[in-house]
Amino acid sequence: MNKKLFLAGLALLLGAGYGVAAFAQAKPEVLVKQRQAVMILHGKYWGPLGGMAQGKVPYNADIVARNAGFLDALSQMPWDGFHPSTKDEKSRALPAVFDDAAKFKEARDRYRGAIGKLVAASKGGDEAAFKVAAGEVGKSCGGCHENFRAK
Amino acid sequence: MNKKLFLAGLALLLGAGYGVAAFAQAKPEVLVKQRQAVMILHGKYWGPLGGMAQGKVPYNADIVARNAGFLDALSQMPWDGFHPSTKDEKSRALPAVFDDAAKFKEARDRYRGAIGKLVAASKGGDEAAFKVAAGEVGKSCGGCHENFRAK
Repeated sequence: MNKKLFLAGLALLLGAGYGVAAFAQAKPEVLVKQRQAVMILHGKYWGPLGGMAQGKVPYNADIVARNAGFLDALSQMPWDGFHPSTKDEKSRALPAVFDDAAKFKEARDRYRGAIGKLVAASKGGDEAAFKVAAGEVGKSCGGCHENFRAK
Repeated sequence: MNKKLFLAGLALLLGAGYGVAAFAQAKPEVLVKQRQAVMILHGKYWGPLGGMAQGKVPYNADIVARNAGFLDALSQMPWDGFHPSTKDEKSRALPAVFDDAAKFKEARDRYRGAIGKLVAASKGGDEAAFKVAAGEVGKSCGGCHENFRAK
């Protein structure tokens, strides 16, 4: 088969599969997997910054800037996954996520605010400013992990 | 316990856990989970764009711009997860990922280039330009999914 045609057909197939899944309301178990995926990637990209903030590993301005940018994207991704339809899915999300949505949103906004400051601090290559901003991020993690996640 | 102190302690704990995991070489099974997490999120954010590119759902410039930005970050994330240590882990990655690294890198670069053009096209709110760029992204997915991933 002509390679261009093959690739065009493949693109259609790929697009079609994704498209159908994307415009039906995503299934609860898919939403849970997606938000868990976001947290797995938080581990990957927050991890090194947490280590640097504590002085356990050397400060590296390039990694800080790159990871802060990734976290800026990642920190926007989990929230629509906490759809009411997921309430009975198996996960570590506590009922308070759905029963106290205002407080959950408050914790989320605090976290997003802290990430915004981290992104800003990561641009100057200033280690002290990074450590202050990273400390705020670390604290804001607890806003959800302490109150809205099972131990 | 004083709340500030508690949160500070929590931040340390969180940072410590992540930090230790981050600076030892990540375990192969963790690397696989991280790269699979990236692909789950590609599904979430590429899906709607694939649907729009095919005219199956209405073009929405705001979603295009947001998702293109997320894909710009996500498209940088999987590659270091294809570490040689993961070769024997259970996943759909074919041995060619490791045995033909140059071709894998070529496919990856083509994909990253297509995403760069998608990000550029998403900024103008121009539907026709978006469709051209999204078509290239769709094709470039096949560069890895056809040659480096088990059916």
